[in-house]
Amino acid sequence: MITLSSDFGSPYPAAMKGVILRQSDARLVDVAHDFPRQDVRAAAFWLREVLPHFPPAVHLVVVDPGVGTDRDAIVVRAGDHALVGPDNGVLLPAARALANGPDYDDLDVFRIAVDDPESSTFHGRDVFAPAAATVHEAGVDRFHEDDGFVPTDAFVDLQFPTATVSETGASGEALVVDGFGNVVTNVPGDAVADRFGEQVRINGEPAPVRRTYARVGPGDRLVTVGSHGNVELAVNRGRGDEAFRVDTGSRVELEY
Amino acid sequence: MITLSSDFGSPYPAAMKGVILRQSDARLVDVAHDFPRQDVRAAAFWLREVLPHFPPAVHLVVVDPGVGTDRDAIVVRAGDHALVGPDNGVLLPAARALANGPDYDDLDVFRIAVDDPESSTFHGRDVFAPAAATVHEAGVDRFHEDDGFVPTDAFVDLQFPTATVSETGASGEALVVDGFGNVVTNVPGDAVADRFGEQVRINGEPAPVRRTYARVGPGDRLVTVGSHGNVELAVNRGRGDEAFRVDTGSRVELEY
Amino acid sequence: MITLSSDFGSPYPAAMKGVILRQSDARLVDVAHDFPRQDVRAAAFWLREVLPHFPPAVHLVVVDPGVGTDRDAIVVRAGDHALVGPDNGVLLPAARALANGPDYDDLDVFRIAVDDPESSTFHGRDVFAPAAATVHEAGVDRFHEDDGFVPTDAFVDLQFPTATVSETGASGEALVVDGFGNVVTNVPGDAVADRFGEQVRINGEPAPVRRTYARVGPGDRLVTVGSHGNVELAVNRGRGDEAFRVDTGSRVELEY
Repeated sequence: MITLSSDFGSPYPAAMKGVILRQSDARLVDVAHDFPRQDVRAAAFWLREVLPHFPPAVHLVVVDPGVGTDRDAIVVRAGDHALVGPDNGVLLPAARALANGPDYDDLDVFRIAVDDPESSTFHGRDVFAPAAATVHEAGVDRFHEDDGFVPTDAFVDLQFPTATVSETGASGEALVVDGFGNVVTNVPGDAVADRFGEQVRINGEPAPVRRTYARVGPGDRLVTVGSHGNVELAVNRGRGDEAFRVDTGSRVELEY
Repeated sequence: MITLSSDFGSPYPAAMKGVILRQSDARLVDVAHDFPRQDVRAAAFWLREVLPHFPPAVHLVVVDPGVGTDRDAIVVRAGDHALVGPDNGVLLPAARALANGPDYDDLDVFRIAVDDPESSTFHGRDVFAPAAATVHEAGVDRFHEDDGFVPTDAFVDLQFPTATVSETGASGEALVVDGFGNVVTNVPGDAVADRFGEQVRINGEPAPVRRTYARVGPGDRLVTVGSHGNVELAVNRGRGDEAFRVDTGSRVELEY
Repeated sequence: MITLSSDFGSPYPAAMKGVILRQSDARLVDVAHDFPRQDVRAAAFWLREVLPHFPPAVHLVVVDPGVGTDRDAIVVRAGDHALVGPDNGVLLPAARALANGPDYDDLDVFRIAVDDPESSTFHGRDVFAPAAATVHEAGVDRFHEDDGFVPTDAFVDLQFPTATVSETGASGEALVVDGFGNVVTNVPGDAVADRFGEQVRINGEPAPVRRTYARVGPGDRLVTVGSHGNVELAVNRGRGDEAFRVDTGSRVELEY
């Protein structure tokens, strides 16, 4: 099985699929091709949320603001999964989740040999898709240097910023906004887990903490804990990002 | 085969796919993930149009404005198909079409056991996807109470409103607007079937009745009969909803 | 394998898939369903770019401004591929690329028998999808007249306009704009291939020629050669169509 993720929109992902299907009969599953363009952190967040639900697979990821520079192309082996994509950190949070641990010891990283990184090549199609197919056909446990994958210890990591939680609240930021306008923060859900039914202040303005959207009226704001386990700013049947006036990267100050 | 339908956009459907693929090798086919958000009636309409074209399958549907309330999760067995989703009526019009009849006698409905309906669980991923996979693996004819599916006679139904047709015209409403702006009404196509080439009035304004869009000029309005068999308000290479100033739920008065 | 391409958006393509899956167990791969609406040339361009990357397959294409007229429905056999769609030229550029040559001799064209071309039938679902499934099941080499496919020499062709390249520059036009705003012109990449690092003028205004987007700053314009081999007008992390003020069909005058 090979999953595909990118910020390519359409129809570029189909070219990657064609290339893979010339090399492999793997089942193909799209994760998303509408990740915010060139937003490595947002893609890394969603991949960490979604990929751990999959059975063992090769995950092809192309969110690549550095295309055309000399950034490397890498494969990360994480447990019985492998991730293939640019060396910009986008693969790492998901890889750690798939390897079931925070340690690099559980991850093996390989550099993909690329002939001319600055060519006008479409790397998704001409570098990453063939590499994903090769890894799939060789086996996640068995692809190796003869296939063009050179072990490396030097790679770009990506860590999500950490929120600070205190007696009086929490200070964090908006990690991503989903398509519905729900704002996922980096504040752990524990910060409000014993306050359902109460009020808090978000960036100075009051908002109710509720277990589910349905606990407030349509159009009303709420603070809740999303399925990802983090504090989420939302509006029942509306857009939380607009109601709370925050966007990806905005500060989120939560006061009890 | 399992089809997937939702109003989730992206990338949430991929998490459902991952969960299913851990339980099943079923072929997965996306129907749509951009149904109008939380619009149960629009989703029910499209599912009734689309699902009957499929061979026997399990149809996973998550359009669920009641998530986080105590609404039930259900499975509907309809002929050699099964539909899995929230108990809000969204499954019923398609289920009746798949069972080839208007009678409930042809449908068996089962309640899915859910531990904590008010948790911050992502029901699509944590309740409906596993249930769909379980139904698929057990077989549409063979899933039963031991799998957590309890027969029930109490479920929410959904009927589309009926138009009235008279000697002088028809009175109905706009059921849905498709992505092109074509307005599907609940007025049966018979109401205009012998009037191709003539004029009618829609909400007081004249419009030509034509068999196909190509029978009027680009940008021109027409009244036609869609492939769904209902009267449709459209514009050749344009948007009918704007030209006729109607939206989902608007009254549509047709006068000969 | 059957690929699907259309300008249908959602959920209409699912009905085509259901119809195919009642006739065939073929693997289905979506190419795109968001081609610019009824823009035959843009679809033809993208299909020529994408389809040659696929292994042998049947390619179902429905971009069909002439639906409801008496335009034919055709199948084009191109090497070990077949293309199924309306007779408006949309299939031809990809067919020539798949047949590996510019000659019609390598292409066999068949007319699909359609009972009533002016009915309110949904041709994608009721004509093209069944034809694609039939071709797939019969085999690209073996479908024939008994299946309802009548050889024909009369079909609509589509040629992309040719740019003129001279000592002082090139004169062409914008063929398509992709979802990122990159403008693909019909000027061959050779026209700037030895000018990387230099400046040219596009429609009178200066712009740098660079091998990759990353060679200019974020938000800056550049002239480059895309993976399709043509001159492309782009902005690093921005929209080339807006920065160069050109859209599909606009003249593009390139001066050294």
